[in-house]
Amino acid sequence: MPAIVVLSGGLGGARFLRGLVEVVDPADVTVIGNVGDDLEVLGLYVSPDLDSILYTLAGLSDEERGWGRGDESWRALEEAGRFGGETWFQLGDRDIGLHLVRTEALRRGEPLSAVTAELPATDGRLRSRVQTPAGEFGLQEWFVARAHRDEVDSVRFEGGDEARPAPGVLEALDAADLIVIAPSNPYISVGPILAVREIRAALEGRHVPAVAVSPMVGGLAIKGPADRMLERMAGGTTPAHVTSCYKGLIDVLLIDEADEGAPLDPSVRTVVTKTLMTDAAARRALAQVVLSVGALR
Amino acid sequence: MPAIVVLSGGLGGARFLRGLVEVVDPADVTVIGNVGDDLEVLGLYVSPDLDSILYTLAGLSDEERGWGRGDESWRALEEAGRFGGETWFQLGDRDIGLHLVRTEALRRGEPLSAVTAELPATDGRLRSRVQTPAGEFGLQEWFVARAHRDEVDSVRFEGGDEARPAPGVLEALDAADLIVIAPSNPYISVGPILAVREIRAALEGRHVPAVAVSPMVGGLAIKGPADRMLERMAGGTTPAHVTSCYKGLIDVLLIDEADEGAPLDPSVRTVVTKTLMTDAAARRALAQVVLSVGALR
Repeated sequence: MPAIVVLSGGLGGARFLRGLVEVVDPADVTVIGNVGDDLEVLGLYVSPDLDSILYTLAGLSDEERGWGRGDESWRALEEAGRFGGETWFQLGDRDIGLHLVRTEALRRGEPLSAVTAELPATDGRLRSRVQTPAGEFGLQEWFVARAHRDEVDSVRFEGGDEARPAPGVLEALDAADLIVIAPSNPYISVGPILAVREIRAALEGRHVPAVAVSPMVGGLAIKGPADRMLERMAGGTTPAHVTSCYKGLIDVLLIDEADEGAPLDPSVRTVVTKTLMTDAAARRALAQVVLSVGALR
Repeated sequence: MPAIVVLSGGLGGARFLRGLVEVVDPADVTVIGNVGDDLEVLGLYVSPDLDSILYTLAGLSDEERGWGRGDESWRALEEAGRFGGETWFQLGDRDIGLHLVRTEALRRGEPLSAVTAELPATDGRLRSRVQTPAGEFGLQEWFVARAHRDEVDSVRFEGGDEARPAPGVLEALDAADLIVIAPSNPYISVGPILAVREIRAALEGRHVPAVAVSPMVGGLAIKGPADRMLERMAGGTTPAHVTSCYKGLIDVLLIDEADEGAPLDPSVRTVVTKTLMTDAAARRALAQVVLSVGALR
């Protein structure tokens, strides 16, 4: 079966992956996930994007909230707050169960790539930091504690220069028949993956099609700050602005029907489809389009 | 107001303390707690006896279960198990909240005595290990995972020789008007406290009365393995066998009416009363007897 590698952030990427593994054998899909958001909170190592993917694929996620576990409760965090612990980052009781096991394994010296179901872009410490008019912040501090209210002037990836791809990442890219960039935030979800020099180089030197799914629908983000970030840092939210984030890295951009007619990048093939993943059928249909565009179906 | 120092294990000691702070100003009471049971589980530092006291005094404990938090749930542990974590030690969600905060503080380098409400006997690493016909076990492994089924031949305190009293412990003993040994297991609750050489020496050299409350009622333990341990290691469960655990360390032993007539140690004054703490009134009455025996009331 053809091998598919997907570069993915959290929410949107996770939903896309869920559709994808319903139309192809999950064993043929390798996910390279973003670790730029990772953080230590209450002594626990938390990997928000990898967890979103894990929970979504396992059918354990909270669909409505869009992050974290379904059937969740918040007792540990409530008590941690009572005893003076930090509570700005919402850790549910079930979620903590995973973090405890992974943190313990990491402290034993196991690499992140050994304790997650997906491949982290790197086992090294790579952290996204956003520059805003109010100063520089760690990604989650800005996103959660400051509710991503500050406009972002630029994103920098601490440790990006030294970061090596996690074991298996380059091998997967090398063996891929199709490379997909999921409908994730180009700056803070896919950006930290591409900040790993050898991953970017592998995409630049690819011999197989690379397809990105635009995270914009009618020039707006479904959730989160991607539209505001594109507006401020790329100058707009059209398909052409999205492709400007992936210069030399993609062959095809999938855009939503709502963006038809907006300026395109002539150097990239644009395919119009429905990208809104409102239900299981829509998720599967989008995955099918990606496969057919990649000439795999 | 007279200063009272109480050496205490978990359950029985915690209940005694709850009665005590209802009849004297809590500010006059210093608790020296057992850390021999402490363990690291799922990467969390857990201090079972100190926590039992904290939860009991704060009115947060589960009265029926006899340990841990009231209104507790077990979701984090359930998930930890799902992801391969160890689940033999029952950590509730609320309980984990406290452990997260304390573990983080300990990792930052703060001593245990700075992050607990009570005084741990030592900030050093002192761990109780039981020798049984089936081998040697860490205290909680034997107590919880093996349900304390193995008979105990002896208890040794790893790190006991090097352990120094936590800051404030010797000062409290020096300033005490009354020293109390709570109705706790002499071997695994009070023993680890007395294993700290300078604490034992302070009790030996005391100038104020030291009163122990026997944990036996009619030769039986209310809960836990104290009776079986006394039977095997001291040769019986009478008041005389209890005092044999505290040679040279106490002046008075409080025993329950159910033990009246059983062999006594003539070198220690014995006072008969009701020691069963069935309700708040009984807890307070026992505390009053301890105070009057100590000539403080």
